[in-house]
This record gives sequence, C-alpha cells and structure tokens, in this order.
Amino acid sequence: MDFESYIRDVADFPKPGVTFKDITPLLNNTKALTAASDALLNMLEGVHVDKVVGVDSRGFIFAPMLASKLGAGFIPVRKKGKLPYKTLSEPYDLEYGTDILEIHSDAIKKGEKVLVHDDVLATGGTAQAVCKLVEKLGGEVVQCNFLIQLAFLDGAEKLNGYPIRSLLRY
Amino acid sequence: MDFESYIRDVADFPKPGVTFKDITPLLNNTKALTAASDALLNMLEGVHVDKVVGVDSRGFIFAPMLASKLGAGFIPVRKKGKLPYKTLSEPYDLEYGTDILEIHSDAIKKGEKVLVHDDVLATGGTAQAVCKLVEKLGGEVVQCNFLIQLAFLDGAEKLNGYPIRSLLRY
Repeated sequence: MDFESYIRDVADFPKPGVTFKDITPLLNNTKALTAASDALLNMLEGVHVDKVVGVDSRGFIFAPMLASKLGAGFIPVRKKGKLPYKTLSEPYDLEYGTDILEIHSDAIKKGEKVLVHDDVLATGGTAQAVCKLVEKLGGEVVQCNFLIQLAFLDGAEKLNGYPIRSLLRY
Repeated sequence: MDFESYIRDVADFPKPGVTFKDITPLLNNTKALTAASDALLNMLEGVHVDKVVGVDSRGFIFAPMLASKLGAGFIPVRKKGKLPYKTLSEPYDLEYGTDILEIHSDAIKKGEKVLVHDDVLATGGTAQAVCKLVEKLGGEVVQCNFLIQLAFLDGAEKLNGYPIRSLLRY
C-alpha cells in the first residue's frame, strides 16, 4: 500500500517553518489503518515480544493493536503526573528545557522482551528516555518501531544499539 | 472474563478523597486486553459504524482497534492546539473552569454513523462535547461506549438520547 499518499503535510505546524506530517488521513481510512498496523507487525519478522510500550498520546494508537496481535501486554508511558500508580521517571530534552516521562514501576518483569512504539521518530529524545525506563525495570528493548522516521533529524543516533524500523522515512 | 479483577483502585488520585480506577493492569495482560476489545465490539450488536472517535489520550487505546475490526476509520479528538489541520472546537466543563476539544473539520462526512469511545464515563462533559463535534460535522452518533462507567456521577444524564454501553459499572 502507498502509505505516503495518506500522510498530509501541514505547513507551519506546530510553529512557523516546520512542516508537520499529519497521520490522521491514514487513520481515517480503515484499509490504510489496518494495513499500517499489519506492516508495523511485519517489521518484527519473528522477534519475540512480551510487552509493547506506547508513548502518550499518538503512540497509543497502534501500540495496543500491535500488543494484542503479538500476544503481548500493552504499557503506556506518559508525561509526569498522569499515571496513577507507583512510577519510575526519566527526563528528556525538549527544544527549550526538559520534560519528564513516567512508566508504572510494576509494568515490566525482569528479562521481558519489549517493543517500543511511537508514531514519529524525530530527534530521538523521547524514544531514548523510554528505552532507559524499560531497562531500569529490567526489560530488554528488542526493537524501536515508528510509523514515520524524520531521518534528517538524526534521531537514530540517540538510539544507537537498538534495532530501529519505520514504515516511512523522510 | 472477570474484567474487574484487572482494574486497580488507586486511592487519592488525582487528588485526596478520589479513588481512581486504574486500567493499566488490564492493558498489561494480553488476554484481558484482547478480551476487552472483543467485548467492546460485542456491545455494538450489529450496529453499523463508519467512523470511531477516540478521546485523547486513553480513548486512543481501544478506539483504533475497534475501528480496524469494524472496518471503520479512526478519528482522534484532542485538546485545543494539538491537531495540525483545520478544526472545529467545542468547550466542555471541568471541575474548575472549562477546556476545549477539537476535531479535524474534514474527519466525518455528512450522514456517517459514528461510535464515540472513551475509557471512562464520569460526569459526561467530555463525551457530550465529543457528540456535539460529531453532529456539527453532520455525523450521527450511533453509540457512546466506555470501558468503565462511574454511574454514581450521573454522566449518562448528559448523554440523554444516545445509546450508552459500558463494560464495567461502579
């Protein structure tokens, strides 16, 4: 399927000079939605996965579907203060300043194989923080997978050592 | 399946005196995750659905799965400023003050049948605003469906006239 034809460029979002890759036309089309989910799954090529971590909030769109199809559990990683139970925290860099991501401290058992999923890999700061959270809990990151990789932002460098797969590269 | 056994009560979250229904143990168990998705689907009992609207961010967990299984498109409703393209807005009441929800203005075609999904029905303000957005775009809300209905908060009153289904009631 030509997934790229379902991605809409939105100029000057979230700020002037930036072109945003809008995935909502892909989500709105049931064939493209299901085909994208299947394609993300195919990128795992027999890799065993116990848990799928999705990053708040667009990472929540495909991660639970992948988890269900893989026979794995789904784990949300959220911004500070959003998860109700005991958490581990990890700071990550934003363009200006830092923010904090959290994971429930009982979400992963030692040795579990973990797929990290988000919609977009940009500078890699978010995915790097998520991988650190997984490892702090004793999990092993077996793949970081994305709908879209903005390759010109070099996010893969921050994820050195983790297998990275993405459906679309720009 | 005894879904209730996968819901964790967290005392004093998000503030003292409130007991939060934490769905993350359900999400973390692949059998419970898949069974919950199937049970939400079964609540539609042959209702035709063209689009599934999920509410940011925990509504994103099951809505895309439901959309894919129903052969429907998925539409995210988000807080003001998060959606990149042209939007319609609708205010909704919070405990103190109001907030604004948005939907892409091209997300629904006139006459389309729409399922509104969120994880929890509490006071009903959010779901009511989502239904208004759907109707402003010419869609018809065929069901509001929830993982959890906090019946003591009377949210169903705000959704008078819409079919409501929920997996668990408290």
